Amino acid sequence: MTRIPSEVLRIADDIRSMRIRGAGRIARAAAEALMIAATNYSGEDLGDFTRYMEDVSRLLLSTRPTAVSLPNAVSYVMKQLRKDYRGVEDARAAVISAARSFIEHSKRAVEAISIIGSRMIKGGETIVTHCNSSAVTGILAKAWSDGKMFRVYATETRPRFQGYITARDLASKGIPVTLIPDSAAVYAMRRADLVIVGADAISSNGALVNKIGTSQIALAAKAHGVPFYVAAETYKFSPYTLIGEPIEIEEREAEEVIHPVPEGIEVRNPVFDATPAEYIDAIITEIGVISPEMAIIIITDYLGHRVSVDMLKSLEDSEPL
Amino acid sequence: MTRIPSEVLRIADDIRSMRIRGAGRIARAAAEALMIAATNYSGEDLGDFTRYMEDVSRLLLSTRPTAVSLPNAVSYVMKQLRKDYRGVEDARAAVISAARSFIEHSKRAVEAISIIGSRMIKGGETIVTHCNSSAVTGILAKAWSDGKMFRVYATETRPRFQGYITARDLASKGIPVTLIPDSAAVYAMRRADLVIVGADAISSNGALVNKIGTSQIALAAKAHGVPFYVAAETYKFSPYTLIGEPIEIEEREAEEVIHPVPEGIEVRNPVFDATPAEYIDAIITEIGVISPEMAIIIITDYLGHRVSVDMLKSLEDSEPL
Amino acid sequence: MTRIPSEVLRIADDIRSMRIRGAGRIARAAAEALMIAATNYSGEDLGDFTRYMEDVSRLLLSTRPTAVSLPNAVSYVMKQLRKDYRGVEDARAAVISAARSFIEHSKRAVEAISIIGSRMIKGGETIVTHCNSSAVTGILAKAWSDGKMFRVYATETRPRFQGYITARDLASKGIPVTLIPDSAAVYAMRRADLVIVGADAISSNGALVNKIGTSQIALAAKAHGVPFYVAAETYKFSPYTLIGEPIEIEEREAEEVIHPVPEGIEVRNPVFDATPAEYIDAIITEIGVISPEMAIIIITDYLGHRVSVDMLKSLEDSEPL
Amino acid sequence: MTRIPSEVLRIADDIRSMRIRGAGRIARAAAEALMIAATNYSGEDLGDFTRYMEDVSRLLLSTRPTAVSLPNAVSYVMKQLRKDYRGVEDARAAVISAARSFIEHSKRAVEAISIIGSRMIKGGETIVTHCNSSAVTGILAKAWSDGKMFRVYATETRPRFQGYITARDLASKGIPVTLIPDSAAVYAMRRADLVIVGADAISSNGALVNKIGTSQIALAAKAHGVPFYVAAETYKFSPYTLIGEPIEIEEREAEEVIHPVPEGIEVRNPVFDATPAEYIDAIITEIGVISPEMAIIIITDYLGHRVSVDMLKSLEDSEPL
Amino acid sequence: MTRIPSEVLRIADDIRSMRIRGAGRIARAAAEALMIAATNYSGEDLGDFTRYMEDVSRLLLSTRPTAVSLPNAVSYVMKQLRKDYRGVEDARAAVISAARSFIEHSKRAVEAISIIGSRMIKGGETIVTHCNSSAVTGILAKAWSDGKMFRVYATETRPRFQGYITARDLASKGIPVTLIPDSAAVYAMRRADLVIVGADAISSNGALVNKIGTSQIALAAKAHGVPFYVAAETYKFSPYTLIGEPIEIEEREAEEVIHPVPEGIEVRNPVFDATPAEYIDAIITEIGVISPEMAIIIITDYLGHRVSVDMLKSLEDSEPL
Amino acid sequence: MTRIPSEVLRIADDIRSMRIRGAGRIARAAAEALMIAATNYSGEDLGDFTRYMEDVSRLLLSTRPTAVSLPNAVSYVMKQLRKDYRGVEDARAAVISAARSFIEHSKRAVEAISIIGSRMIKGGETIVTHCNSSAVTGILAKAWSDGKMFRVYATETRPRFQGYITARDLASKGIPVTLIPDSAAVYAMRRADLVIVGADAISSNGALVNKIGTSQIALAAKAHGVPFYVAAETYKFSPYTLIGEPIEIEEREAEEVIHPVPEGIEVRNPVFDATPAEYIDAIITEIGVISPEMAIIIITDYLGHRVSVDMLKSLEDSEPL
Repeated sequence: MTRIPSEVLRIADDIRSMRIRGAGRIARAAAEALMIAATNYSGEDLGDFTRYMEDVSRLLLSTRPTAVSLPNAVSYVMKQLRKDYRGVEDARAAVISAARSFIEHSKRAVEAISIIGSRMIKGGETIVTHCNSSAVTGILAKAWSDGKMFRVYATETRPRFQGYITARDLASKGIPVTLIPDSAAVYAMRRADLVIVGADAISSNGALVNKIGTSQIALAAKAHGVPFYVAAETYKFSPYTLIGEPIEIEEREAEEVIHPVPEGIEVRNPVFDATPAEYIDAIITEIGVISPEMAIIIITDYLGHRVSVDMLKSLEDSEPL
Repeated sequence: MTRIPSEVLRIADDIRSMRIRGAGRIARAAAEALMIAATNYSGEDLGDFTRYMEDVSRLLLSTRPTAVSLPNAVSYVMKQLRKDYRGVEDARAAVISAARSFIEHSKRAVEAISIIGSRMIKGGETIVTHCNSSAVTGILAKAWSDGKMFRVYATETRPRFQGYITARDLASKGIPVTLIPDSAAVYAMRRADLVIVGADAISSNGALVNKIGTSQIALAAKAHGVPFYVAAETYKFSPYTLIGEPIEIEEREAEEVIHPVPEGIEVRNPVFDATPAEYIDAIITEIGVISPEMAIIIITDYLGHRVSVDMLKSLEDSEPL
Repeated sequence: MTRIPSEVLRIADDIRSMRIRGAGRIARAAAEALMIAATNYSGEDLGDFTRYMEDVSRLLLSTRPTAVSLPNAVSYVMKQLRKDYRGVEDARAAVISAARSFIEHSKRAVEAISIIGSRMIKGGETIVTHCNSSAVTGILAKAWSDGKMFRVYATETRPRFQGYITARDLASKGIPVTLIPDSAAVYAMRRADLVIVGADAISSNGALVNKIGTSQIALAAKAHGVPFYVAAETYKFSPYTLIGEPIEIEEREAEEVIHPVPEGIEVRNPVFDATPAEYIDAIITEIGVISPEMAIIIITDYLGHRVSVDMLKSLEDSEPL
Repeated sequence: MTRIPSEVLRIADDIRSMRIRGAGRIARAAAEALMIAATNYSGEDLGDFTRYMEDVSRLLLSTRPTAVSLPNAVSYVMKQLRKDYRGVEDARAAVISAARSFIEHSKRAVEAISIIGSRMIKGGETIVTHCNSSAVTGILAKAWSDGKMFRVYATETRPRFQGYITARDLASKGIPVTLIPDSAAVYAMRRADLVIVGADAISSNGALVNKIGTSQIALAAKAHGVPFYVAAETYKFSPYTLIGEPIEIEEREAEEVIHPVPEGIEVRNPVFDATPAEYIDAIITEIGVISPEMAIIIITDYLGHRVSVDMLKSLEDSEPL
Repeated sequence: MTRIPSEVLRIADDIRSMRIRGAGRIARAAAEALMIAATNYSGEDLGDFTRYMEDVSRLLLSTRPTAVSLPNAVSYVMKQLRKDYRGVEDARAAVISAARSFIEHSKRAVEAISIIGSRMIKGGETIVTHCNSSAVTGILAKAWSDGKMFRVYATETRPRFQGYITARDLASKGIPVTLIPDSAAVYAMRRADLVIVGADAISSNGALVNKIGTSQIALAAKAHGVPFYVAAETYKFSPYTLIGEPIEIEEREAEEVIHPVPEGIEVRNPVFDATPAEYIDAIITEIGVISPEMAIIIITDYLGHRVSVDMLKSLEDSEPL
Repeated sequence: MTRIPSEVLRIADDIRSMRIRGAGRIARAAAEALMIAATNYSGEDLGDFTRYMEDVSRLLLSTRPTAVSLPNAVSYVMKQLRKDYRGVEDARAAVISAARSFIEHSKRAVEAISIIGSRMIKGGETIVTHCNSSAVTGILAKAWSDGKMFRVYATETRPRFQGYITARDLASKGIPVTLIPDSAAVYAMRRADLVIVGADAISSNGALVNKIGTSQIALAAKAHGVPFYVAAETYKFSPYTLIGEPIEIEEREAEEVIHPVPEGIEVRNPVFDATPAEYIDAIITEIGVISPEMAIIIITDYLGHRVSVDMLKSLEDSEPL
């Protein structure tokens, strides 16, 4: 059996050790690893090539079992191997081409989202955002540079105050921005025309997993009839949820909330929460503006994930995802 | 014109006379009948083969015009005949292969749903269910056998008390189960983390047709912010609704409710009710977890139903569906 | 200290042993006992008379600590003792007059509710009711005898099927009535113009405690924009809730639901549930049609209950309510 | 470079000058123009043919930049040019065939919608409609001619009273129709079983743009649990919204509302409003009954629109859509 | 028995013949008639005086059985007769004083509402109103004259266009006002901070009866989280609803909607609709800002209406209200 | 005219300078001042005494025009002066008695609320609270000391972290308490059975003004069907809102949110927000558990505020409240 190239092993280790982090960077690194593996394959047998590539895929997938973009990159590239090729050369070319396409596409996703999202801003709006999302600030910066006037309420986003980054970023571009405590979301919503937030992951039934507090902003938006938009690259759509795996809601250390933690007081510090699809008016992706309920189409048709009983059963036999 | 084999005629009659019943069994019998018909065809002309298979399809479809899984099986197999084949052999092989695939797939659908659905249970939940669904009990049994701890409220499901079957089934597996009158659904919902129910049919716009009482459980779930899941094999998605045909809501005899029926009192005993898509958080199918709004994708892309004016007009001319 | 007359002791015992039952009958018996006690008092000292009457009151209140109408009768009569009288005769007369007024009023409460409620039916309606309430059937019978045409859906009301009584009662008067399983409430609501139900108790913040299943009928009515009315005599308004005491939700034996209870299955059989005020459009009382939020006015102004810290503290010291 | 035939130029001008108007007619004229252009092409080079056809497409698209059906026709036809052809003849044939298919399909779309929609009417309903839609009157006329009995509430639809046309049209077919002021929509909804309205455009996230007042009818339907259906040909689905372009809400002259406009009074006369997908139970299209959330599938898979960063950037460089 | 003075008879006839109209004017005329009757009474017997005044009351009440302010005036004055007087002089003085107080109070009610309501406007708001209410325009004019800046959307209010009067009235005071079709209420609500409407009547459970279209404005306000205020003099609170009498929803001639009415088209022209209390944030009355659920307090405590079985029964015996 | 005693002037100044602060302390100081003033009055003329006391009232009211409890204390005491007294002595005695009653009552209000509210906790609940309220911690401490077991989620309450005080206070009593960021309110609500918060003020239509963030906790509670209770002494009910005066929403310095405030970033720091009555299930006051819609009864009947046109007009003439 062909050995996995050391460069690929290094990339896998970098993902595992979190030297490579961030949904986009992880995804592109995995695609690049597949491209390198295909390039380095020296055999002549198509079946062997396929098994070899599957080994590489498994290796990559094992590095961060909960990273949502990793399986998307692998699946996007590997679905090319399902077709009938005349030989290794054709298969290799298909894999390399798919990997390049994914990398290119992924790199330009935020740019595409910025262009699309900016068109949804007419000018004159008051816009609420939460936490810090490059897709959201991309949209706002693009709309502002297109000459549209608007103002933004940014929540401070306890406990880590990522809203400060958003506020500073927007202010540096000259966009009028108002920082508010998280608890003033209803106050802002009474004045708002639009909410735009980013995404950590989107499940196959369209639920949004994003920074803690997002779901109450969604509740406030619904109560005031304010449209609620999400900006999300397609590699944020979770293929695990397609097969029932819940998106893990990480909890961070109590000291982020209060330091030191007073005796006798428990502290919970969940990082994310889930906002059901019914609260989301649209998701702005690089392939267009969609309903959240369309999430499964992104996962299956665009990203290439499929379910079968055999796959499910082998999943059962292996270690938990 | 080639005669329809007697074995096929017998299957058709068994479906008509309800000797073969149940959505899954009906669907598989129809696929098998198409396979037998294709196998027995002895001509050489592709056009004739196609017409012959269409005759068989029409025969099968006529046996139970409202059975939702029947047209799904027929369509899944027959959509193979649309492709260009070199001769009868290729077409026959395609039909037989599709029929086998459908049968195999259908047989394993509940198993796949059980695996997928069980992953959506984290452990520690209180779960409400209604009536008796093999997909739901499959999910619960799988989750329990995976070592997850939870408890179930099962409604008794008047008038036929199918909830007793559910309760006994779960109890026999050691799952803690509490039986409640249908009217105590709000009582249970105050304590619940999750609702999972089965499906009799799902319409092309994602509405769920299920045992009477399902829609008020959905109302109670919505009022308490409790996720509402449906477990449904893809052959439960109704292709008739795609062309506007409402799912028939059967009514059974009054004596099921009260016996004898007192003079001067009318009794209504509708078997099903319809729950709109907006009350459903996810449908767990054997091909993954989807939004109810995705129903039409299942019906058109996966099951292969298409609409055309000509088809609609011929439908008009024939007897009512 | 004056001894409590044996007739009063007997009434107290009859209430305690549930020989006297039903909200109205209990209330009238208590008022009668107070009247007898006042009549039999032979002293001349107003202070002594007051203390004696308070003893009688405490005795009566202790007989069924959770009966909602009992404290209402006692309070209605006893609030007369707060005024300045010239002597025992005046005080006695006031007590007797109040007791008579309460009894007369209480006896005619259902009649008044029937007249008032019947005016709210214009004719032509489809009306949903649940369980069996004399106030509701009184309203329907009155409206029907006034020549108004309408039809009624009566839920069977598991587990004790009190809906049968309602259906038979209405049918005997010639009113078109349709019996449905509890789970068909949404089915009925799609066709309904009005819901009218009775009450077991109404809390000081307007929540309705009534037969299990009432709250999901209220949910269904809200989802269909159907007005939801409650028919309740004023002595159904709970004074205990004024001071924070929750209305006890009794549970009855499992065997009412299923007999014998299968091994390994828990059965819950709560008798009542609580419907928040926001689901209730109006309460029809014998003193007029009110909003549920007005409940405290009935309890304090009409029935005469008042709260003070001293009262609360003495309550604390005594045995639990 | 091949010159664009004068017949094509004339069609383009007729669309620009609104001599050709109406979503269906514009779409069919554009498809016809593409067919004529392809027929008249006399070169031999496939690349040149493609560039020539793209020139024609751009010309057509520029005539009415906000007409929603125009890009749908062009895209439906032009997506054929993406495939690998052996030469101009094959490409031309594909283009002509697609144009014919689009024209034929489009012509019969209302007929198909009428057949499908009519099946969703069981008979006995009270139906509310707003403004005047040929798809809606088609559905009602078909259902009526099939012997179903029902009644219709038509809103007068200020300021131009298009509801009169609907009412007269239905009355002329013998359908019982009641005309009401727009402000009586809640009055009608209390009696209604169903709402069916047409569409001016549907956005990629399923929001409906239709005659002003539609959104409040949707609010009233939701508040009364009445299903809300939209009848819309697929060419009403806006591809511009896929890339974030809002559907323009035209405003007409104040004099339509009040003439002359009194001094000191501003008058606003917006022609359309937007109804979010969550208020819509189903969209009846000629290819079946779908959820509004499926809109993007119609736009991408059926009509053939795709998004890429390059396309977005070239869009940026050109004049605004 | 003392004869009723001719001046009283004339007032009664003027109310009956609608020479005296408008809730306020009718109420004051009735109070004046009672004052005249009391002044003209020449007997010495208190019982006779009481019976005589009751005769006058009955006469007045019979003139317009559905006018909501008439019984309020009569009740306000006549409740004085319940007290113990030493003779006719005292009783007469009490009646005359109560009548004067009612007239004075009623005349100044709109002024008080204007002062109170104007304080609820901070400045900077966009305010929606419907139809034409002197209490609402009073509030707006007062706030404007106090130097507060705001803008108003006035619906045209089909079919009689009373919104034009509102718009002209506000414009004449320099208040920025925008006239919109009734169907553009959602359009306005997206920009609104506040809704203020008048009242034709308020029922004992807090439901508002006002010009047709009010209820859909309330729905739109709720969907956008916009506070909905009602401005209503206390004599608009209906005492009839206390005893179950529905507020009559008058229908006017079809020709108001369309003239001539086309053949085969039914026209409905209901003048009012009912908005449930849950949609109303506050009612601004001359005695303060209250919740709609407080309506019964106004009717019973302030206006003096009480319910008894005897009253209800005598009501039954007399001609219908 | 009698001079105001220097002790009264000192109290007035202490309130003005905020040496006396807190709703309860301010109210009691004002009542005490009135008592001192009455005691020190040395005249014999009732009219003069009344005018003198009114002068003292005006002085006290002017010290902190927005303090909600101040006018409540003054009004409670001063409404005694409306009655007919035989001379100054009687009037003085009435005033002093009312002042004493108010002070005593006010001191014991939190104790009474603790007893009443603790009865509403059955044991076993998960309870969410926000900010720091002595009435809420009183209820929780009382319930805990009564042996009821429950757990509390306390939000940290940015920007001043008053939730830490709540958490420490509860922890010191051994009550299990979990501190969460404000943005985790939905996270807590999924697990909650009950919300209890305090009040800064309650308006005459039942809206709650409380620490910023309360309204989004109320939204989350509604979305999850969790009862939302408010603990509020009666002197928190705002009499100003009765006459239309909005409760002022104070804003504090930006530096509380972020220090230093980065250049180019605006910071808003509103201290309170308003929660409409429809989100509140009950208000726990020292005189019992009421609906928020009953607020006006507390203000008028219990606290003694009345509205008249003359009062409104004199208000207009004086400086703004």
